[in-house]
Amino acid sequence: MYVVIVYDSDDSVKFHKYLKKFLFWKQNSVFYGELTEGKFKKIQNKINEMLSENDSIIIFSNNSSDFIINKYGKEKDFDGIFI
Amino acid sequence: MYVVIVYDSDDSVKFHKYLKKFLFWKQNSVFYGELTEGKFKKIQNKINEMLSENDSIIIFSNNSSDFIINKYGKEKDFDGIFI
Repeated sequence: MYVVIVYDSDDSVKFHKYLKKFLFWKQNSVFYGELTEGKFKKIQNKINEMLSENDSIIIFSNNSSDFIINKYGKEKDFDGIFI
Repeated sequence: MYVVIVYDSDDSVKFHKYLKKFLFWKQNSVFYGELTEGKFKKIQNKINEMLSENDSIIIFSNNSSDFIINKYGKEKDFDGIFI
């Protein structure tokens, strides 16, 4: 399955560190990629564990076909943001 | 077609104001919804026009089937953020 995960958190680093193991980083708080059902469930459970009071996460997924991705503007560099 | 639009901008309000005409707001900088091809092209053109130097926009789209949406944590309130 194909997933897009967007998070809004005061501690973005915890989500970034975890999600980069499975998915591609696309923008400050956006990860994207293909996952097995098992990996997807694992990630969902872990997100529930990691969730702090003010965090907000949305997962968009699709079982049948991949997303088309269009980018506009600046290519953001995660490492640059957290130096 | 089904689209997810994620933006990262110093002036989020300009994107929010424009995109809310066509799509549903899902989180601080995330819009989601179904669009005709024509509306999608119109939005892509407008995004190109609105783009400032440091803006970064990603559009995930799918022609064939809708996304499944899972939300975790706090439901963010856009108006609350910009008071």
